[in-house]
Amino acid sequence: MKAALWHGRDDVRIEEVPEPTPRENEVKIGVKWCGICGSDLHEYRAGPMIIPQKPHPLTGRTPPIILGHEFSGDVVEIGSGVKDVNVGDRVVVNALIYCGQCFYCGMGEYNMCIKLGSTGLASDGGFAEFVTVPSYATYNIPPEVTYETGTFVEPLAVAIRAVKRARAQVGNTAAVVGAGPIGLLVQQAAAACGAGKVYAIEPLAERRELAKKLGATEVFDPSEGDVSKEIHALTHGMRADVAYECVGNQGAFDTAVRVTGRRGMIVMVGLAIEPLTVPFLRLWGHEKEITTSQGYVDEFPPAIAFLADGRVQVESMITGKITLDDLVEKGFKELIEHPEENIKIVVSPQ
Amino acid sequence: MKAALWHGRDDVRIEEVPEPTPRENEVKIGVKWCGICGSDLHEYRAGPMIIPQKPHPLTGRTPPIILGHEFSGDVVEIGSGVKDVNVGDRVVVNALIYCGQCFYCGMGEYNMCIKLGSTGLASDGGFAEFVTVPSYATYNIPPEVTYETGTFVEPLAVAIRAVKRARAQVGNTAAVVGAGPIGLLVQQAAAACGAGKVYAIEPLAERRELAKKLGATEVFDPSEGDVSKEIHALTHGMRADVAYECVGNQGAFDTAVRVTGRRGMIVMVGLAIEPLTVPFLRLWGHEKEITTSQGYVDEFPPAIAFLADGRVQVESMITGKITLDDLVEKGFKELIEHPEENIKIVVSPQ
Repeated sequence: MKAALWHGRDDVRIEEVPEPTPRENEVKIGVKWCGICGSDLHEYRAGPMIIPQKPHPLTGRTPPIILGHEFSGDVVEIGSGVKDVNVGDRVVVNALIYCGQCFYCGMGEYNMCIKLGSTGLASDGGFAEFVTVPSYATYNIPPEVTYETGTFVEPLAVAIRAVKRARAQVGNTAAVVGAGPIGLLVQQAAAACGAGKVYAIEPLAERRELAKKLGATEVFDPSEGDVSKEIHALTHGMRADVAYECVGNQGAFDTAVRVTGRRGMIVMVGLAIEPLTVPFLRLWGHEKEITTSQGYVDEFPPAIAFLADGRVQVESMITGKITLDDLVEKGFKELIEHPEENIKIVVSPQ
Repeated sequence: MKAALWHGRDDVRIEEVPEPTPRENEVKIGVKWCGICGSDLHEYRAGPMIIPQKPHPLTGRTPPIILGHEFSGDVVEIGSGVKDVNVGDRVVVNALIYCGQCFYCGMGEYNMCIKLGSTGLASDGGFAEFVTVPSYATYNIPPEVTYETGTFVEPLAVAIRAVKRARAQVGNTAAVVGAGPIGLLVQQAAAACGAGKVYAIEPLAERRELAKKLGATEVFDPSEGDVSKEIHALTHGMRADVAYECVGNQGAFDTAVRVTGRRGMIVMVGLAIEPLTVPFLRLWGHEKEITTSQGYVDEFPPAIAFLADGRVQVESMITGKITLDDLVEKGFKELIEHPEENIKIVVSPQ
């Protein structure tokens, strides 16, 4: 079968590899679509970051590894012992791979598993015609969720977890810094989870327009004027209860700090590769807090529900549909070089 | 009366000033003892920091201002309208001055008051023979709390709030970075509030010894060996649920990050004047969080209770008793120049 293998930094190859066979308690999925995630780009440009450099403790894998963890497809074969999944099921996949035996797994906190891995990073993923995954990792999608929109279940689960980690009250004012793929999902997840107002902050005009279309109460260009003053005025001095930092750099973080009000929470969603400078003296006076959010635990069901009932809209976020052969040139490179024209590119292995 | 006035950086003078007279709803207190706080030292060395540079919105005050906010004494006179405080009451004082009218005060979150000030910084404080304060700010102390130990109620309230901000489960493992006056109170407050084990991390041998004497489960010298590895081993890989950063610098913060386990909370208690560098990539993978704690809201009653019943011991933290005339030389300078020999110095205006 055809697959996209990460061999090294700047070295992702489309190759013919043997079709995988489901082992005990695994299922084989015929991939329909797989989204390109920011972490795929990180691995392509600057990896290995999450891709294991020595054999992964759970999968034993080292590169080359088939990338792709935001995929949908049909179950085409089940391994021995699989009971709750049937051939023909339309599914999406929880990409986290965990041991099930450590303290954290025992507590149901499997995103904290001491051996945590991810399909498409620590085992072969969805940029391929077929992929095998543990049967417990599949979630059936209802007819309202298409294969294309189903690719958003995984990143939407990430967004919903970020919202849950904020522990904000219903009716909270949320500020979302960055209207890229994760920011646009966080914005919608915040609204779906009870935020009162959602302010989107984004320098690219195209993305601001999309944020507005997808329901942002107001959109702001951080390169024009002082967003924190504008939000201060709009909220009668209260500013945001929660700021979601969906970029991962110093400028976005500084904005998140400034737009957050007293007792405010800053949720780090964007992956800040470099350490950031934090003005604790300013946080302290207002008892501001910073939290982080890693993957998801039980956020697949609400993600599917929000997509199915339309509370979260993703069709307009798909800015490209390509085939596997074009993954690097029309996928990775396109996203890196033309962020203003793209949000999410989905890939078909056909 | 005699009082210590902050005129400017490195310029605190012991002077004769008129005795204050309690206005409506104020009480006049004859000060018995007043502790020297780290923020007094900050104001002395590097102020004005909290001391207002323009008239404070609630008190109208600018320097010179009488310092001192950790004091105990007797009520010697009450102003008109005061009902619940009587002459002769043995009291300590909530130093926070708030408007009572803003959104946050209305929510009972007065430490977030938009006009927040503090006795001894935005109004005349307790390094004086007499001080007047709003009657609502006084708390009676029981016989078990002496005037000397009563000076610890205010900083202990700060410590208890820091513990509450951690939102840790009963039985949590706490690591306290820094065994200075606040660290030693946080350590004891954490234990009094249900921490299972309390690890104290402190480079000064004298302070480690005191931390152990005051109940630390284990003490660690961060300048010898790798504390995080030691705590990792002691906790079977779990590390601390909460790290209290009670120093306020990069080294202490880095230690706090390293000794904290998955889903761990870092509470910033020490006042980090300079911004700190935060490795979010490391926090993210373990969903670590950082919170801040500002003053107190309703932490005076438990602080008095813990001192009264002996759950928090402070006598051994008093390393000096001086009179007001010696405040600068034997108080401020002594604490700055000889931290290894001192924890808390209390001052009598007599």
